[in-house]
Amino acid sequence: MSYQQHSFEHQRITEEPFYLPTGDEITVGLAAAANQLPLLLKGPTGCGKTRFMRYLAWRLQRPLITVSCHDDLSTADLVGRYLIRGNDTVWLDGPLTTAVRIGGICYLDEIVEARKDTTVVIHPLADDRRELPLEKRGELITAPAGFMLAVSYNPGYQSVLKDLKPSTRQRFVSLSFRYPAAAQESHIVAAEAGIDKALAGRLVRLGELTRGLKESGLPEGASTRLLIQAGQLIVSGIEVRTACMVGIVESLTDDPDLLEALREMVSAVF
Amino acid sequence: MSYQQHSFEHQRITEEPFYLPTGDEITVGLAAAANQLPLLLKGPTGCGKTRFMRYLAWRLQRPLITVSCHDDLSTADLVGRYLIRGNDTVWLDGPLTTAVRIGGICYLDEIVEARKDTTVVIHPLADDRRELPLEKRGELITAPAGFMLAVSYNPGYQSVLKDLKPSTRQRFVSLSFRYPAAAQESHIVAAEAGIDKALAGRLVRLGELTRGLKESGLPEGASTRLLIQAGQLIVSGIEVRTACMVGIVESLTDDPDLLEALREMVSAVF
Amino acid sequence: MSYQQHSFEHQRITEEPFYLPTGDEITVGLAAAANQLPLLLKGPTGCGKTRFMRYLAWRLQRPLITVSCHDDLSTADLVGRYLIRGNDTVWLDGPLTTAVRIGGICYLDEIVEARKDTTVVIHPLADDRRELPLEKRGELITAPAGFMLAVSYNPGYQSVLKDLKPSTRQRFVSLSFRYPAAAQESHIVAAEAGIDKALAGRLVRLGELTRGLKESGLPEGASTRLLIQAGQLIVSGIEVRTACMVGIVESLTDDPDLLEALREMVSAVF
Amino acid sequence: MSYQQHSFEHQRITEEPFYLPTGDEITVGLAAAANQLPLLLKGPTGCGKTRFMRYLAWRLQRPLITVSCHDDLSTADLVGRYLIRGNDTVWLDGPLTTAVRIGGICYLDEIVEARKDTTVVIHPLADDRRELPLEKRGELITAPAGFMLAVSYNPGYQSVLKDLKPSTRQRFVSLSFRYPAAAQESHIVAAEAGIDKALAGRLVRLGELTRGLKESGLPEGASTRLLIQAGQLIVSGIEVRTACMVGIVESLTDDPDLLEALREMVSAVF
Amino acid sequence: MSYQQHSFEHQRITEEPFYLPTGDEITVGLAAAANQLPLLLKGPTGCGKTRFMRYLAWRLQRPLITVSCHDDLSTADLVGRYLIRGNDTVWLDGPLTTAVRIGGICYLDEIVEARKDTTVVIHPLADDRRELPLEKRGELITAPAGFMLAVSYNPGYQSVLKDLKPSTRQRFVSLSFRYPAAAQESHIVAAEAGIDKALAGRLVRLGELTRGLKESGLPEGASTRLLIQAGQLIVSGIEVRTACMVGIVESLTDDPDLLEALREMVSAVF
Amino acid sequence: MSYQQHSFEHQRITEEPFYLPTGDEITVGLAAAANQLPLLLKGPTGCGKTRFMRYLAWRLQRPLITVSCHDDLSTADLVGRYLIRGNDTVWLDGPLTTAVRIGGICYLDEIVEARKDTTVVIHPLADDRRELPLEKRGELITAPAGFMLAVSYNPGYQSVLKDLKPSTRQRFVSLSFRYPAAAQESHIVAAEAGIDKALAGRLVRLGELTRGLKESGLPEGASTRLLIQAGQLIVSGIEVRTACMVGIVESLTDDPDLLEALREMVSAVF
Repeated sequence: MSYQQHSFEHQRITEEPFYLPTGDEITVGLAAAANQLPLLLKGPTGCGKTRFMRYLAWRLQRPLITVSCHDDLSTADLVGRYLIRGNDTVWLDGPLTTAVRIGGICYLDEIVEARKDTTVVIHPLADDRRELPLEKRGELITAPAGFMLAVSYNPGYQSVLKDLKPSTRQRFVSLSFRYPAAAQESHIVAAEAGIDKALAGRLVRLGELTRGLKESGLPEGASTRLLIQAGQLIVSGIEVRTACMVGIVESLTDDPDLLEALREMVSAVF
Repeated sequence: MSYQQHSFEHQRITEEPFYLPTGDEITVGLAAAANQLPLLLKGPTGCGKTRFMRYLAWRLQRPLITVSCHDDLSTADLVGRYLIRGNDTVWLDGPLTTAVRIGGICYLDEIVEARKDTTVVIHPLADDRRELPLEKRGELITAPAGFMLAVSYNPGYQSVLKDLKPSTRQRFVSLSFRYPAAAQESHIVAAEAGIDKALAGRLVRLGELTRGLKESGLPEGASTRLLIQAGQLIVSGIEVRTACMVGIVESLTDDPDLLEALREMVSAVF
Repeated sequence: MSYQQHSFEHQRITEEPFYLPTGDEITVGLAAAANQLPLLLKGPTGCGKTRFMRYLAWRLQRPLITVSCHDDLSTADLVGRYLIRGNDTVWLDGPLTTAVRIGGICYLDEIVEARKDTTVVIHPLADDRRELPLEKRGELITAPAGFMLAVSYNPGYQSVLKDLKPSTRQRFVSLSFRYPAAAQESHIVAAEAGIDKALAGRLVRLGELTRGLKESGLPEGASTRLLIQAGQLIVSGIEVRTACMVGIVESLTDDPDLLEALREMVSAVF
Repeated sequence: MSYQQHSFEHQRITEEPFYLPTGDEITVGLAAAANQLPLLLKGPTGCGKTRFMRYLAWRLQRPLITVSCHDDLSTADLVGRYLIRGNDTVWLDGPLTTAVRIGGICYLDEIVEARKDTTVVIHPLADDRRELPLEKRGELITAPAGFMLAVSYNPGYQSVLKDLKPSTRQRFVSLSFRYPAAAQESHIVAAEAGIDKALAGRLVRLGELTRGLKESGLPEGASTRLLIQAGQLIVSGIEVRTACMVGIVESLTDDPDLLEALREMVSAVF
Repeated sequence: MSYQQHSFEHQRITEEPFYLPTGDEITVGLAAAANQLPLLLKGPTGCGKTRFMRYLAWRLQRPLITVSCHDDLSTADLVGRYLIRGNDTVWLDGPLTTAVRIGGICYLDEIVEARKDTTVVIHPLADDRRELPLEKRGELITAPAGFMLAVSYNPGYQSVLKDLKPSTRQRFVSLSFRYPAAAQESHIVAAEAGIDKALAGRLVRLGELTRGLKESGLPEGASTRLLIQAGQLIVSGIEVRTACMVGIVESLTDDPDLLEALREMVSAVF
Repeated sequence: MSYQQHSFEHQRITEEPFYLPTGDEITVGLAAAANQLPLLLKGPTGCGKTRFMRYLAWRLQRPLITVSCHDDLSTADLVGRYLIRGNDTVWLDGPLTTAVRIGGICYLDEIVEARKDTTVVIHPLADDRRELPLEKRGELITAPAGFMLAVSYNPGYQSVLKDLKPSTRQRFVSLSFRYPAAAQESHIVAAEAGIDKALAGRLVRLGELTRGLKESGLPEGASTRLLIQAGQLIVSGIEVRTACMVGIVESLTDDPDLLEALREMVSAVF
């Protein structure tokens, strides 16, 4: 049995990512890091949570390891497991263990999707013990000062069954994210899609209209990401309204009534 | 432990497939490929989604790897797994990993049927990171420019339980497919079944009638594929109405009332 | 790792099976085979679906491999799996793969009982691709001309949960089976049980009466198989009414009221 | 890989078991065996189904292999599985396969408790094919003439979820068992417990009274087995009413009202 | 493959355990043992069922093996399993098999908690066959005369889902246990906790009051064990009412209203 | 096969932890230890249960092993399992077994989250037997005098499905924890966050207000831990109200109405 260094390619972010703050989130994030407190990011799809984590990792000059959570993500997927190699058994650290060992940032995206055991495994890491028990190795790792835990979820479409328990939530400093203000979002869309400010502004206007449809049953309005995507299609020569339909509208819903309402919004804006 | 090149027979499509466009789908598909954006194809059974992907792969001159999704399709089925070979352990890339490595197109058919973890594993591939983490190998692959992700589903019979999450949907350029127009569908049926235009036209008329039964409880009307199949049976000498019954009607439903209504439609057309 | 030829004893049917057609099913079955189209057989228990497949296999002179589907039948059960043999790993083809390799007929009996993944694995075999991907071997087999896929189910007692999806159904030529007409069924019962026509006729009359009890809550009436069985018991010296009770009635239900109604039917016929 | 003969101790019943027939069941059982038809035994707990199978096995001079079915009984438990032995893999026949190979009787007790796949695996054995496919060995065994399949269940407390499908039921000759008539039951109880006829008669009277409580919510009345047990306790010196309470009443229910009613029955009889 | 003697430390009880009978249970238990009949013990938590089994084992001078049943207890946990040891496979007997081999008493505590398959595996041991089939070894063990099977459960909080089937219950001699009478319970509490009779009497009075709260929603009143525990805390210097609160009341419920009612009972008694 | 000493890093607490008792809990804990009785700690999130266990371990000078329970925690996770190492199989003690072997304290945090089998495995450890059966090793360990078992849970948000069974509860001495009194909590918050008494007092006032929102649907009010966290952020330069929002309010809920109510509480206090 031997130990095998984990070679997961954690991201060392070497260039400053483009990030426009919408509030105190950078100051709070840095203060949480300074106090070795974990972060919980809340907010809708594509509003900048992942982008914020990349910016924070750059500011802190720490490697960032992102894990997309899902129904079948188990403790072993996070912590590590034994693998058989020929006649030998080797231990392979999981991404969370790697982050703890190297003093990096572990970002668990959509934490509520994971199995409950994964949320419990982070408990001793998320209070002042800052410990990770590797029960299968009989080892207890204490996180170095540089380690940071961050988790995210979208409160907009959580079910009761997939809520964080109070005993989990109450271990985190919590940042609530919203879509950027119109001027700021136009700036982002123009820069990322390579279009002019006027077109970007109209796409943002369309985005805001879609976000007003929540009461009509649309689970979520268009993310900034979709607006950028529509802009890119336009640059590639797709007609504006077609670009809005395939790049934004059809990606939002299959409901005929909502599709019709969205189509009218496209016509109203363009 | 050794690495073993995956030999999955991805299709290199060498001859132009027969495909009649019904809208802007080819232009949009090429623009999505140019911008390295993933594609989501929506539409009813047998309306040409798979055929479109074959055409697009031919146009882009890229290999196409198709995966039919189902309830038990796991991340390992897509990404790969370790296998024991004698005294050695070898890694076998899954179809998604193969597509990423060779810069091909990976087409996940009926994505909503897959387990939720499979939809999450495509998230980092479907945004601007274009990365595939092979957690069990501790490896992170960045997709080459040629790689394209495409997924499909049928919004007609999705349940609430099997819907795509907004955080998944909002990563895609979305194309909505419908049955071709009558003249076009007749052209296809005649060509594929080897029958004359008049007979093909009547089969298409029958197909259209069946598609109107959705309100009466028929989950889906006859696909173009069924119309072609009936035509083939007629060419083989089966009497026209029998061919319509066994080739179309009995493949649509078991409900006695619907069967009776469909039988009358056959009598009305032939 | 080595490849091991699968030695599953597929049936080569050397003598013409006794089969009385009730409609066009033979012509349609041969036309489907000629056009390389898959077959879907619908109908109640014991009405001759399996017998028809044996006849068709004899007519086509192809080996027949039958798989009885059930809740736990997985893709690996159909397609094959790796097995460890001493220090070696060998691949064992499943019955579906064997059928594809040898160009035989694979008949999936009661397909709706199988897990959903098994219905998806037959999709690429059931359209014009006629391909079987062996994902674990990284191999894609194209079916030879002789291969035929056939599936069956009983629409009489399907639940909504166990219905075939339209995307599955619409790949098949569909034959609907019913119980044979009285004269024909008498002929079969007399021949198979070795009894005279008059007794066979009375058993068939009893069978028809039981099939009328569906509205009273009997899930299915007596199959031809049960009528033959009662006949066999009579030949073995069991008193006629006792033979009808143990050979037919008690095999249909445990419900006291239905048992009483069936007992009266026996008395009325004998 | 080697083949290892299964050494399961099937019972060869060398002495005639004590069995009092209550109807035609012996004649029917022998006729079913003569016609190679499988048997289905229905009836309440402890009414003699297992005893009948032992008698029949003795009459037919065939080994009897009994399998008590339960929720987790899988196909492999019946058919067999590969086991790793040192560096070798050996196949171990399950009890059903053993019965087929040696031409014995396989008796699946409480078949409805088993998983659905186990009921399907017996289908080809229970019709005129009389075949057992060992899919994992790629082998198909045809049952010799001596092989007989028998299954049992208790229709008294089946749920809808645990009912036999018509396609399973309609493969069997079905025998319905009831408690023996009073005189006969007294004879059995006296013989088995070693008590006099008068005491046995009173125990049987008590048993009959308990069987009348079904309408009051008692799932099942006292089996002959319980009456014998109470008799044995009396022989061992336990006071009669105490023996009835601990040997019969407390084994029937925990419901206070039913316990009170049963206690009064004991007082009424003794 | 080798056979490895199981070294489970079954208890040989060398000193007479302290046990005060509350009825005929000892005579009945000995009679059951003499007739090789299995025992079923019913009664509330901590009323002496386990203690009775220890006493009976001492009286019979047989080793006692106790298994606490739970949701995940499988047949293999009871019967045994193959384990890989280096290059060899050894069989390890489970506790039930050990008890059968050595002719001891196997006591399955809270049998209804176990998976259904475990209740079926005891069926052939619990009737006059007294056999244990080790299906994975292809072996059938007949229990020696000394073997005794005993099971227990608490009818007070069983759900319908976790009830013993009649076919299981009707194999046992059934003993119903209740809390001991007040004088007797005081005697036990005083002896075990090392307190005087007066204090013990007041604790027993408190226990009886709590047992009257069942109608008010308390699932079970205080067991004798809790009364002893409170006595022990008092001996250790904890104030009487505090000892009753932490040793009895808070261990019974979390319901505020019930806690208040229990607190008043404590005040009333002390 | 060899035995491998478990090297789990159990905590030996060498410095007196900061702990302010809120009642008799220390005396009771020491008395329970003296009588070898197990402890059950009840109370809301972050009220000091874990801290109390650390203090008690320090007072008793025993190592403390903490296990955070979750849905998938199995008996093997607690007790130990066999692992394959090269050609050998070694046994690895789980944390519970380690605690028993070394005579330490095993603290199962949030016991009700664990699978039911884990609660049953502690039964023989939690009564006067004080035994731990290692069924897979065929070994029975008797706990040394120093061993102590402690479990905790939060009665505030238990569901009926996740309640401790009476047979489990009634094995424990039970301590009920509440939030400390205001003066005491201010003392703790000031000391831990490094802020002055006045600010700490205001944070505690805010905490108390949030705990009054339970009737309005907030599952749990702010824990002392959250108040400390907000204090730390303030020390790091975050504006007071922002620190309360990200450090307390947003960690409590996502409900817009509750968030608004909490925001007003912040404004009222600061």
